Amino acid sequence: MSTDAFTDRLERARTAARGLATATTGQKNAALAAIADAIEAGIPQVVEANRLDLERGRESGLEEGLLDRLLLDDSRLRGLAAAVRDVISLADPIGEVVRGSTMANGMQITQVRVPFGVIGAIYEARPNVTVDIASLALKSGNGVVLRGGTAAEQSNRVLVQLIQRAVTGVGLDGEAVQTIDEFGRDGANRLMRARGYIDVLIPRGSANLISTVVRESTVPVIETGSGIVHVFVDASADEEKAAAIVRNAKTHRPSVCNAAETLLVHRECADRLLPRLAADLIDAGVLLHGDERTRELAEGILAADDETWATEHLALEMGVKVVDSLDEALAHIERFSTRHTESIVTENYDNAQRFLAEVDSAVVMVNASTRFTDGGEFGFGAEVGISTQKLHARGPMGLAELTSTKWLVRGSGQIR
Amino acid sequence: MSTDAFTDRLERARTAARGLATATTGQKNAALAAIADAIEAGIPQVVEANRLDLERGRESGLEEGLLDRLLLDDSRLRGLAAAVRDVISLADPIGEVVRGSTMANGMQITQVRVPFGVIGAIYEARPNVTVDIASLALKSGNGVVLRGGTAAEQSNRVLVQLIQRAVTGVGLDGEAVQTIDEFGRDGANRLMRARGYIDVLIPRGSANLISTVVRESTVPVIETGSGIVHVFVDASADEEKAAAIVRNAKTHRPSVCNAAETLLVHRECADRLLPRLAADLIDAGVLLHGDERTRELAEGILAADDETWATEHLALEMGVKVVDSLDEALAHIERFSTRHTESIVTENYDNAQRFLAEVDSAVVMVNASTRFTDGGEFGFGAEVGISTQKLHARGPMGLAELTSTKWLVRGSGQIR
Repeated sequence: MSTDAFTDRLERARTAARGLATATTGQKNAALAAIADAIEAGIPQVVEANRLDLERGRESGLEEGLLDRLLLDDSRLRGLAAAVRDVISLADPIGEVVRGSTMANGMQITQVRVPFGVIGAIYEARPNVTVDIASLALKSGNGVVLRGGTAAEQSNRVLVQLIQRAVTGVGLDGEAVQTIDEFGRDGANRLMRARGYIDVLIPRGSANLISTVVRESTVPVIETGSGIVHVFVDASADEEKAAAIVRNAKTHRPSVCNAAETLLVHRECADRLLPRLAADLIDAGVLLHGDERTRELAEGILAADDETWATEHLALEMGVKVVDSLDEALAHIERFSTRHTESIVTENYDNAQRFLAEVDSAVVMVNASTRFTDGGEFGFGAEVGISTQKLHARGPMGLAELTSTKWLVRGSGQIR
Repeated sequence: MSTDAFTDRLERARTAARGLATATTGQKNAALAAIADAIEAGIPQVVEANRLDLERGRESGLEEGLLDRLLLDDSRLRGLAAAVRDVISLADPIGEVVRGSTMANGMQITQVRVPFGVIGAIYEARPNVTVDIASLALKSGNGVVLRGGTAAEQSNRVLVQLIQRAVTGVGLDGEAVQTIDEFGRDGANRLMRARGYIDVLIPRGSANLISTVVRESTVPVIETGSGIVHVFVDASADEEKAAAIVRNAKTHRPSVCNAAETLLVHRECADRLLPRLAADLIDAGVLLHGDERTRELAEGILAADDETWATEHLALEMGVKVVDSLDEALAHIERFSTRHTESIVTENYDNAQRFLAEVDSAVVMVNASTRFTDGGEFGFGAEVGISTQKLHARGPMGLAELTSTKWLVRGSGQIR
């Protein structure tokens, strides 16, 4: 593909986004309704395109988990259409007055929420993300340039066509949604350097993908995802709460970033709780890697090694360690956490307060499963991703996190 | 310098910052008071160190403007100490509850303001910035690693020593403030790649410095500064307001980023207003570069060229252009603005509303001087810089913009 075709695509997104920035909520909701209808009406087309991606994936030896992520069938597509309709009911963040005041000289200053402009998204082999991100971007008045990976190229192409036509059909500019999959890896590289075209880049996927984008991008990035998540069972922990939280945090959905990867147990409750916690996990099919003290207290646990505490398993596998104190737990977390989510199970008020204050993670919990770190669970109604950086957004991101602000100053001739 | 000395400095800042994050407002204010006192008591020392920097600057042929920026004398240092005392009176942003709610399952979620951790600052030949940034960082609970440039190395070294001792003297860890000037350009390069040590990097200085940092840094950057700022005098503009605003925006302090660089005049008021606006500016010593229609209406104006509209003069120099319509003004701004500040002078309500809605800049004004884009003027009480990016902070930054947030979740055994 020529340089010009790529730039042309970014320019079209930019121009279309300018119109979208001043579209009314009603217009944007009409576009979303049209997208949902178009996806349902287009199921045969999408399934056919998806079949080609799956075939190619099987030929090139994609593993079963990735093929499953890639799959779009009738029921998943109806689910996607329903998710788009859910976005209609979310409050439109654009135009919200964040703060403001009248200055001593009579000037009125108002900070209002505005779209970023054009969002770039880089993700892997998940065509559902194409629809998710496009609908959230549209609702927040943003254009979006999608790089969904060559493995899902056919599916993404058809989905983006359906979206573009639906948006254009209600009188907005459908070019606000663009895919650049056909430009391959070169397209991804150029997207990361498209300052002036792309206002913010959101990578979603493996730790490897995310760290590449963070390293290579000159466009501002919102880092999402990777989670070496800890549950610390304190000396005073209630047995039933600890058992429920540990099991839920590890096994409810082990493949996602808010699943727990390391269990820390205070030595003063290890005798009392560790045998049951370990047996429950093993019952649920979890492979445990324990330190020496853990292995003295429970059966069927592999020896942990240096890698254990630094590994995001994303599977039914977990590290277990006995610690001498809250301080040791905090130090372990400080060292190994990816600053996503950590939870303490305790009945001690002071320890709960210390844990909340001292753990430097996006979400810090007392007596709750780490699985609650999620936009939907936090009441944002949408899953844009979970930011693990400190700039702009931290933790679960909703529509407001896809916006910027600007200051309006209304004067009557004021000068300094 | 060895690799280890550099990393050691970052590690010390990081460790000290951890303590600062949970310091009380009273402790932080005591540290600020001690810093102000130390600067006043240390005036002879700082002036002597500054003399060495100035001598070296003169020898290496620094221009007069830069030497002036570099200069610290008794009165400037007393001014700096006073500025530090002003920071004491600012509200402490740390611990502020931003939002929160109780979920259906009884879990309480609360988003609270926390420090970033360690801020990196890269700037040039302005030792006053050393004190400014250090005091703002301390008040917001952050450590800070300062790279102020070799031209101000001696001054910065003494100032940082005074600050460190003052902070340690009140029982906090003075190592939270570090300078890396002696590591030279290599130190700056390493600072830009110090992920895990530095949470956010703020470049302050020339457009060139800022674009280098944006390009090279893998640490998240807050881009500040460069301003190709426009004033658009609309057809209905009031003569006195237009004259006052244009003159103030250009001449009040031409060397700063919120000074106007381009004057756009609607053709329907050009006959009526342009001759006076131009004469006023020329009277004030401004060198004007005009398009053809401007030069037909006023004397003593050089011909504008292609560079005129894309130049940030930062001096008594300005481009002037007659436009046919509000649309043409908006298109010119869209093309040439650096998205810092633009102002319309108009008596027409609809045009004011359109300008506010459609100009995509950090600050958009009606009938006010662009010089008001300033943290102090916006009532933030502090000048951290003016962000021209859309991520995290946009426009004048106050203490809150030097913070991140985290979510606290208080449960009673909830699982999904």
